[in-house]
This record gives sequence, structure tokens and C-alpha cells, in this order.
Amino acid sequence: MTSIDLNADLGEGFGRWRLTDDEGLLSVVTSANVACGFHAGDPATMRRVCALAAERGVTIGAQVSYRDLAGFGRRTMDVPPAELAAEVAYQIGALEVFARAAGTRVAYVKPHGALYNRVVLDDEQAAAVVDGVLLAGGALPVLGLPGSRVLERAGRAGLPVVPEAFADRAYTDEGTLVPRVQEGALVTDPDAVVARAVGLARSGAVTACSGARIEVRARSLCVHGDTPGAVELARRVRARLEASGVRVAAFA
Amino acid sequence: MTSIDLNADLGEGFGRWRLTDDEGLLSVVTSANVACGFHAGDPATMRRVCALAAERGVTIGAQVSYRDLAGFGRRTMDVPPAELAAEVAYQIGALEVFARAAGTRVAYVKPHGALYNRVVLDDEQAAAVVDGVLLAGGALPVLGLPGSRVLERAGRAGLPVVPEAFADRAYTDEGTLVPRVQEGALVTDPDAVVARAVGLARSGAVTACSGARIEVRARSLCVHGDTPGAVELARRVRARLEASGVRVAAFA
Amino acid sequence: MTSIDLNADLGEGFGRWRLTDDEGLLSVVTSANVACGFHAGDPATMRRVCALAAERGVTIGAQVSYRDLAGFGRRTMDVPPAELAAEVAYQIGALEVFARAAGTRVAYVKPHGALYNRVVLDDEQAAAVVDGVLLAGGALPVLGLPGSRVLERAGRAGLPVVPEAFADRAYTDEGTLVPRVQEGALVTDPDAVVARAVGLARSGAVTACSGARIEVRARSLCVHGDTPGAVELARRVRARLEASGVRVAAFA
Amino acid sequence: MTSIDLNADLGEGFGRWRLTDDEGLLSVVTSANVACGFHAGDPATMRRVCALAAERGVTIGAQVSYRDLAGFGRRTMDVPPAELAAEVAYQIGALEVFARAAGTRVAYVKPHGALYNRVVLDDEQAAAVVDGVLLAGGALPVLGLPGSRVLERAGRAGLPVVPEAFADRAYTDEGTLVPRVQEGALVTDPDAVVARAVGLARSGAVTACSGARIEVRARSLCVHGDTPGAVELARRVRARLEASGVRVAAFA
Repeated sequence: MTSIDLNADLGEGFGRWRLTDDEGLLSVVTSANVACGFHAGDPATMRRVCALAAERGVTIGAQVSYRDLAGFGRRTMDVPPAELAAEVAYQIGALEVFARAAGTRVAYVKPHGALYNRVVLDDEQAAAVVDGVLLAGGALPVLGLPGSRVLERAGRAGLPVVPEAFADRAYTDEGTLVPRVQEGALVTDPDAVVARAVGLARSGAVTACSGARIEVRARSLCVHGDTPGAVELARRVRARLEASGVRVAAFA
Repeated sequence: MTSIDLNADLGEGFGRWRLTDDEGLLSVVTSANVACGFHAGDPATMRRVCALAAERGVTIGAQVSYRDLAGFGRRTMDVPPAELAAEVAYQIGALEVFARAAGTRVAYVKPHGALYNRVVLDDEQAAAVVDGVLLAGGALPVLGLPGSRVLERAGRAGLPVVPEAFADRAYTDEGTLVPRVQEGALVTDPDAVVARAVGLARSGAVTACSGARIEVRARSLCVHGDTPGAVELARRVRARLEASGVRVAAFA
Repeated sequence: MTSIDLNADLGEGFGRWRLTDDEGLLSVVTSANVACGFHAGDPATMRRVCALAAERGVTIGAQVSYRDLAGFGRRTMDVPPAELAAEVAYQIGALEVFARAAGTRVAYVKPHGALYNRVVLDDEQAAAVVDGVLLAGGALPVLGLPGSRVLERAGRAGLPVVPEAFADRAYTDEGTLVPRVQEGALVTDPDAVVARAVGLARSGAVTACSGARIEVRARSLCVHGDTPGAVELARRVRARLEASGVRVAAFA
Repeated sequence: MTSIDLNADLGEGFGRWRLTDDEGLLSVVTSANVACGFHAGDPATMRRVCALAAERGVTIGAQVSYRDLAGFGRRTMDVPPAELAAEVAYQIGALEVFARAAGTRVAYVKPHGALYNRVVLDDEQAAAVVDGVLLAGGALPVLGLPGSRVLERAGRAGLPVVPEAFADRAYTDEGTLVPRVQEGALVTDPDAVVARAVGLARSGAVTACSGARIEVRARSLCVHGDTPGAVELARRVRARLEASGVRVAAFA
């Protein structure tokens, strides 16, 4: 039976500010990418989200980011590799405390925002992220874009890799995401999103902008929870996956 | 044979800024209170200091603080207990990653600056700090002022407590430190500091401002390394302790 | 004709996070307390809110705070007076740039959150805030609680003072606010809030918890905009004030 | 008579941390690039440095940076133009308060670190910096590398431009600086630095790595003050300039 993981970004508030519908998402996803304080995520929120995730059997991952609260981690930064590795390890360690306190463990690492995009092509920063994961110990799996430098580096370092796909993003013929700034980058029709999710899970393929059918062998699908209706859409995606005979389960 | 621990604050730079003579101190002390990023201490510095400490057999402790880079953690803050506990745990977890990567573990917790002073008398924040230590797991010992609320709370929670003393600070008849703002708060004569250190280690007593002899049963002496000549003075303290038949060794 | 100012906190997001309904509030209030980056308020938001306020003829004030993004400025801090004065001036200066760019000026200063409460009774910090306002130049009016140390200090320094009242907060017999942590601190019935606002504006009095009628000679009423329905309630307050023959206009 | 300005970075501490010898530099330079809080520079330090500069007749400039305390503004960031412009204006406004309080004004703007280097070639960020300067008002001169995009943009916008040169940096044949990571990037021989400074001031030329003589028509020379001996070297540079008949005076 085909199986797929659903992951989402959680705990992306900071202090007084809330962004993600953490409770809503935790009733849908199987893996929670928890913000670790560098782009979002204060310690009390991290603790709360870990406790909720553990309670519901949702796997906890460290969503590591550049240190950039003002830019929500969406601004690429030229962080020297040794600093970046240490920053990644710092975030994983901080989250680990709350995962353990909730009776579980950090089970994977997913870069956030600008760092996610940078390590698709930038080998030096990709290597630094992997160094950070190794520093943190425990040989944690790395979640990222299929074909990205970071997954290549992680694999070479002996870490498990988890390629992911996006049902609500347009793809190029090369299997990369159409940049957000380009028109048509986001798939906004809910039915299309649901259909693409099922296609990605069942056949490992998706239709690119050009109409070409491309392979995206993903083991996890990323769903979003920071816009109105997003949790409801994620719920529909999950329901249709299950109705289509796909088992929705954490990859870890 | 009488034994005493020597502890010092380390890694108190941030990014481009340096403060403490980490290498110098690590050649003298037996316990390193490593800054964890809230008042000082970037991840790369934390990593470096942990590696050096492990190399030299110096025990690593988490020097936890209010979140206050601009004030170096010296400004008392009314942090709600649940937030404070989570912040303490976050810092311990982040440091633990670098201690483990260096082949060792975080072995104790010492509050820094304003938090250190606050939890002498403030029971609510003292309890929050202890909650943070418990959250982090591992039943870590807490280093603090004898008679402080935080040691009392830690003891009640089943955590080991390590009372510490200061050879370069004046004491009141009640065994508390004369506030820094008062004249005579600091003992500046190096010979007096050395003599007081030996007295504290051998007899567990020190002469208060009034001339009275007071008991300060400390298991650790705090030495400083952020002023010119400080490391040299620490070295003299250690040499005289050993010459007086005191074994200088980590408490942990 | 009786006249009253309506003020509200605006621009209290940060980067990706939004909190206050700035557009909604600017259609109701006559004075905008704009966050200046220490508890909330990134530069781009400050610019946008100043432009909108100027466009609608709403007076701009600097909402100055402790440096505490993680605590939203709600955690009292023992900031040394010279540092606090400089921090206050820094925030005013930063906002002034955006007010001028919008064709207007910063017209007053209002402390935020924990600083607001601290300078009711703490004379040293009150004096520091006033020093900061003087440093910034322009003899800006200070908005605060009637009878507070900060208004007393501001008046003594020759600054205009603007006492304010809260229609949605319970008062003690002494004219101070019932602390938020106590039951009944917030007046939640919209009709009661509206009635109290009219009473405060027309007669300068409000009913305290005890039932006693107390004088609160306020020149400005603070309304809130960070909860659902808050802007709508503010709109009702303004409509009823005007229907009662009160002129709603900026004090400045 | 030939005239040249000497500028240096000042106030580059933060809270407890110090970096630059502000008093020493203020006895040598004619223009002070004061850090504004984004890469360094707390409000109390900004106030102090402005007061000292005004006292000694040294011109005050705003040293604007990416928001990056942890990286000291040395990490290039992809800040969207509208945010960058607002951040630049924010910093200028904050500094202006302290310049005015000292009886003077902010007289120019110089980007710091990674931003300085980025706007040499990146037209979009160069335009954003210029937008920020325009937002701040007062048509402030911009200090930068001859031939840089930021000077080109500033000139086009009607702002005065001040090309600067570095006596202690190696130049390529194209008149750009040899990157710090390359060998020979820094001129370390004090006599050579002094000779190059005089050459730059008198003939507007310097010898490139290749041995070629290149033109660098600079109106300001940047000297450094964050390393041992740096202030002494700056003093020698100034003395030799004056002994060679060059008038050392602020450009503004």
C-alpha cells in the first residue's frame, strides 16, 4: 500500500504574535516542522507545540532557519559555513529539550524559508546545514527538495533523506518550484491542489507548467496552515489521499 | 582532604565581540559557566568553548539568563514563570548539543547576572528556574548563593545544589553579598582575594564588612575573567589553594 | 463644547506578524500611538502607518517601550536611567523620520505596556522617560495616567501633559487601574464601555469598582484594536460621543 | 591647497561590549561613521559618541547596516528594497536625535560592512539605500566606493556623493578593493599605509597589485580603529598628510 507523510510548519508565532493554526494542523498532519526561535518560535510556544504534537502522535521535526526574526527567515543570508552549522545545531538542541519533555524526540530536520531555497543549489551552505545536523547528533533525517544539494550532501554523510513535494506549487520541467514572484507559482484552486496531492502520492508525478508530466518521487507532502482556509484544505487533501487508498503516515 | 571547585563565566562574547579570556580561564578553572545566547554567547562561540573545555577536562555548565543582549542580562525582568522556565530549558538544550559534540555533557546550571540575583529572594522566579532545569531533564545540579530561594527550590525538587562563594566580593553579616553599587563591594587587593579564597575553601568562613566571621559553606568559588589581570589573579588563587593543601576539582 | 481625543496603539506587528487592525483604527481614532521597534513595529510598518495616519489627519505619537520583542514590552525591566532615556530618544527619532516623510511630525509620546505601568509609581524611570523626551527635542507632550509620576515629572520639566482614561478598564477608588490579573479588571460589556466613555468625556468621572464615583479628568480616551470586535466597539464609542455632543478631536 | 577628509567607524560596541577606541579615533578623524543599532551601537553609546564628536568638531555620519547584530552586519542579506529603504531611514532618524541633542546634525550616510560591498554592484539595493536616505530627508551626502552603484544612484537622485579610498587595502587594476579573503588584501606595513595615504590625497592615485598606477579620486580616506595600534597608525597618517601640505578637514 502506498504511504505518504504530510508535513506542515508549526509554532511560527513569536511572543505576542501568532501565525499558524497549530491545533488545527496537528489534527491533519503526520509531521510537524516546529520553528526553533531563529525565524519564529519562542520557547514557551515550542514547549506547547511539542506537547500537543506528542499527545496526538505527530512526529516532531526541527525547522531550522537563518537568524532573522525581522524577515521571518525569508531573506537569504551569506552566513559563513562554520557559523551556519553551529546555528543549525543550536536550534535542534533547543527543540530537543521540549520534544524530550513531551516524551518524544526530534525526528528530523527541515530548513526554513530562504535557507530551504538556498541549499537547493548552494553546495557550501548545504554542507553547512548537514554539518549542523551531524553536530546535533542522532543521525537525523533531512527533509528537502528532491535533487537539492542538501539532500545530496545529507545522503553522502550517511543521513536519511526525505524528498518532499508541494501540491500547491507549480513545477518547472526540471522538477524545481516556480519562484513565488512569478505568475502562476501558486496553485490556488482547491480541487487542483487535492488532485495533485493524490497524483504525487500515488504515481510520484505531477504536471509541470508546460503540461509535461514530471517525476517527483516524494515521501512527504508539505501543506500550509498560515492562510484562511488552509487547514480546511489540508484536511481535504488528507481525506482524499485516504479515500484513494493512500496510507497517510509519518515517514519516520 | 578539603576540595573546592573553581567556576568562571566563559564565552561571553557575541558575534564580533569578545569579552572573556576563554583560553586563559580554561587553564585555571574546573567548571565553565558557558553563556547560552540570551545575554551573550553565539552558537559558534558556544561550540568552540565546549570543545576547549572538554579537551582540558573542565566541566561544562549552562549559564542561563534573561533574554537581554542589550543589557548583558544585568537588568531584572518580570518574566512570567512559564516563559522563564521554557527560556531556561531552551538555553540548556542549545548548549547540550555542543557539550555532546565535544564528547561530554552539560553538568550543571548557573543563573547569570540579574537572574542570579533575582532568584536569591524571589521565590516565584526561583521556582521557574528550577522548573526549567527539570524540563531540560537529567536532574542537573544548580549552582547559586547559599541560602538562596533557588537552591532551596532545587533541593526540594530533588536536584543537587552547589552553594558558591566569591573571594572578591564583600559580605554582609547575613552572608549575602554587598551590592555592587555600594562602596567596598569589591575586594580589590589581590592578596586579600587570595587569602579569602583559601579561608573560604579551608574553613568555610569569611570576614564580613563588620569584621564578623561568617560561615559560607561553599563547594565552589567563582572567579572572574573579564578584567585585565583577572586570569592572572585566578591563577594565583588556584596556586595558593593547592599550596595550602586544598584539592581543586570540579564538584560534579 | 466638550472635546476629547481618542488614542489607540497601532503598527504593533513585526515583520511577518500582524496584530492591530491599523486601517480600521485609523478610521476611528484621532491619535495613533505608533510602535517604534522595541516591543513591535518594524521600519516598513512604521512608514506605512505614518503615511496612512497623515493621509487621514490622525495625529502621530511615539509609543515607546522597553527593548523586548519576545515579551511585547509587557515585562518590567530594571533599565538604568541613562540607558532608558537614550532608548526612549532613539525610538522617537526613528519614528520622526517616517512622520516627516509623510508630511507631518511626531506630536506626542506614550510609554507602552510595562513601561507605562512602571512610570505610574517609579520616579526614577519616570524621570528617565522624561529625559528621553527632552533629549529628542521639540518639547513633546506626554500621554499617561492622571496622577502618575511620569506626568508629574513631565509637567515639572515644562512638557505638556495629557492625562488619559480607559473606558474598558475597572478603576480603584484611588483612580488607578485594577491590575489585569484581578477579576473584573476589564469591562467586557460593550454597552458599559460606551456609557463609561461618554461619562468620562462629559463629566470627567467614572464609577469605581466599589461603586464610588471618582474624578479622572482625562483629555484622551484609549481604545483598543487588537481583539475581534475591538474596532467596531471603538467606532460605537466614537459615534456615541459625537451623538452626546462631545467633539472628538486630537488634543495636539 | 589639497584637502582630504579622514573617516572612521565609531561606536561599534553594543551594551557590555566595546570594540572601537572612540576617544582615540575622535582625536584623529574629521568624520565619524556612527553605528546606529543594526550591526552595533546601542542608544547610550550613540548618545555618548555624538556628544564627544560634537565637542571635538568631528562631523557625524550615519553608518547604516543590515539588521544583523550576530553577524556584525558582515553577512550579505537579500532584504527587499522597500524594507531596506525603511531600515536605512530608521537608523538615520535614530542617530539624528543624538546628533541634535549634541548641538549638531547627521551630515552624511555611509553603508556598513556587507551592505557597503553589496551596493557597489547591486543596483536594486543601491537604489533602496538611496531611497532610505531620501526618506530621511535633508539631502544627505552618501559616502562610498568610487564607481559604485550607490554613488551613481545617489548622484542621479540629486544627493552629494563622497568617493572614499582605503590606504590599507590593496586595489585591483579596475580600482576595486581586493577581497579580504585573498592574500595581500590588506596592506600591513605602516610605512606603506602612510605613503599610500599621502599619494591618494595628493595625486588621487594608488599603486594596484599589478604595479599599475590607478586613479582613485577620493575625497575621504577611511582609517580603522578596531585593532591594536590602529589609532596610532591613523595618527601617523594624519600627521604625514599635514606635513605633506594636505589640509585634513571634513568634506561636509
